[in-house]
Amino acid sequence: MQEKTVYNFNAGPATLPKAVMLKAQEEFVNYRGCGYGIVEESHRAAPFEEIIQAAEANIRKLMGISADYDVLFLQGGASLQFAMVPMNLMVPGKKIAFCDTGEWAHKAMKEAKILGAGINLVYDGAKEKYSCIGDVSSWQFDQNDAYAHICSNNTIYGTAYNQYPDTGALPLIADMSSDIMSKVVDVNRFALIFAGAQKNMGPSGVTLVIMRKGLAERCPETVPTMLRFSTHIKAQSLYNTPSTFSIYMVRLVTDWMLEQGGVPAIQKLNETKAAKLYAAIDESGFFRGTCAKADRSKMNVCFRIGEGNEELEKKFVSESKAAGMIGLKGHRAVGGLRASIYNAMPMAGIDALVAFMKAFAAKNG
Amino acid sequence: MQEKTVYNFNAGPATLPKAVMLKAQEEFVNYRGCGYGIVEESHRAAPFEEIIQAAEANIRKLMGISADYDVLFLQGGASLQFAMVPMNLMVPGKKIAFCDTGEWAHKAMKEAKILGAGINLVYDGAKEKYSCIGDVSSWQFDQNDAYAHICSNNTIYGTAYNQYPDTGALPLIADMSSDIMSKVVDVNRFALIFAGAQKNMGPSGVTLVIMRKGLAERCPETVPTMLRFSTHIKAQSLYNTPSTFSIYMVRLVTDWMLEQGGVPAIQKLNETKAAKLYAAIDESGFFRGTCAKADRSKMNVCFRIGEGNEELEKKFVSESKAAGMIGLKGHRAVGGLRASIYNAMPMAGIDALVAFMKAFAAKNG
Repeated sequence: MQEKTVYNFNAGPATLPKAVMLKAQEEFVNYRGCGYGIVEESHRAAPFEEIIQAAEANIRKLMGISADYDVLFLQGGASLQFAMVPMNLMVPGKKIAFCDTGEWAHKAMKEAKILGAGINLVYDGAKEKYSCIGDVSSWQFDQNDAYAHICSNNTIYGTAYNQYPDTGALPLIADMSSDIMSKVVDVNRFALIFAGAQKNMGPSGVTLVIMRKGLAERCPETVPTMLRFSTHIKAQSLYNTPSTFSIYMVRLVTDWMLEQGGVPAIQKLNETKAAKLYAAIDESGFFRGTCAKADRSKMNVCFRIGEGNEELEKKFVSESKAAGMIGLKGHRAVGGLRASIYNAMPMAGIDALVAFMKAFAAKNG
Repeated sequence: MQEKTVYNFNAGPATLPKAVMLKAQEEFVNYRGCGYGIVEESHRAAPFEEIIQAAEANIRKLMGISADYDVLFLQGGASLQFAMVPMNLMVPGKKIAFCDTGEWAHKAMKEAKILGAGINLVYDGAKEKYSCIGDVSSWQFDQNDAYAHICSNNTIYGTAYNQYPDTGALPLIADMSSDIMSKVVDVNRFALIFAGAQKNMGPSGVTLVIMRKGLAERCPETVPTMLRFSTHIKAQSLYNTPSTFSIYMVRLVTDWMLEQGGVPAIQKLNETKAAKLYAAIDESGFFRGTCAKADRSKMNVCFRIGEGNEELEKKFVSESKAAGMIGLKGHRAVGGLRASIYNAMPMAGIDALVAFMKAFAAKNG
């Protein structure tokens, strides 16, 4: 097949670093000379053990995770964490604090309700159609709750926490699926962080969990073995067969992140990428950002044409695709346009999109 | 890297068809000319939809699955099914029938107990150290139980059902992780079949569930969304992001199976492969099969040297590895030797192993 340059702005699974893709391809059928592919290797064999340990070491280094935390590779995505977290950490008679900033925080809250937990709704973003997060320092947390849950970046609505709420001694749980390792975060502020890999870290199939030691002991006896964090802590993520190829890819992506200069360097690049794109929106007089400027995500840039010109938006999606930029359609829940620009999206992709936007506005404005 | 022939006898993840590996490698960075890899594609995009639908269609064709059944691609492996099945299908006041033929059936039983289910132990293989299954027609099932659970092939002990028990109207659930699509099976005899992909179907990361329609309605309201079969039936396995690359590989492997002539042709080859290997054991006067001949697995051939000469077995593992045959060590729970010979193990691998065994016996016998 002839090579062509395509920029993939999908919200996830998403674009991966080209160097990683080429390396994985090169050793796909013969991993480091062993004569067969890593996808065929036993999860109990030395080559895979080296991979999962290296992936964990990379993540610890990239995020500055101390020995006070366990790092786990699980399955089922963030959606399974929406259930696993309350199954393991809810406390009879105590409520769970939720900050509802969008669909994923809302879904997590729904699962806690299904499991019978009482909810303390600390922030209800639905009132503003999830277009902002606002001043988190004004949020009130009840120290008697079991824990507090936030979603750090809202892929669908394009908002993100630019600072995290102070929950005091209340354990703070964050779903960082869509911005993990995109910016420097003080892990010590969190009791538990979880993230599906398929945006900033690798392909789908693996979910990262970073969990403060001791917390898993809360889990009641009635929770099935596979759904207990303690099972995976004890077995170092090898209680049963994990999605081995996904973990292999996470190792390669995190190797690449370290080569790029780690999270501070990546954050700087991400800020420049997002600033360029938002400037193109704000300066156009044609496109319009959909959320409060202070709460704009640097991962998912959501915008519309005018007040929501669906016909032109459809044309934008189809013409951008023809120009080699895919995945620019907004989520079906909100419509409009969205460019997901995770760590692996190169500056050249942003430049191509900005140029396309300018030309499109000039032609259709 | 220089190409060398290595035969991978690991119990899973396991060897995949060479043709599949080469095809996946070829299109890894540029899937069918789209300009990026399938591992980077959105699970909601048309190319992936085509893949998951083709994988389902292939499996339906290979196994002769009627429209009375749903076919699902889940995460978490068989180990999560040990919990999901009782969570969805247990009935208050009713027991669950278990046929304990080895570690995986036993673990499933343990999960049902954790969830508070009463157990009807129909067959207790632990008494014979799981070395046989015996006459299933003598097993007694109570029609008042919620369902009956079997594990069709026991990877650790090397036994398999050569015929399935008749449970009457009692729904029969089978864990077919290690022999799915290795032989012709009448799916209509089962209420639910589940199988981790990483032995006969593809890489790890995806779990196949084949489920009789209507059964999922049993599930109580208190089960979290991700753990309800009905969620995945309704969303056609796309409720959340699945392990997309694993499903892509399953599609390629099932394409390959169809090209080989489907399950009947594969079964014939598997029977020849197993017969050759067992003959080499039985005729050696040096090696010894570890389980009842009538119950021998055609997937996992377990054997020892003499009555269990650990020193020679260690030598066998190390010398076979040097000769290009890996993964021949028995499971840590039982020791000894084990050759896992799933669908993708070519006859040449069996021939190489048999030749090695003969030479080893001649030198060390």
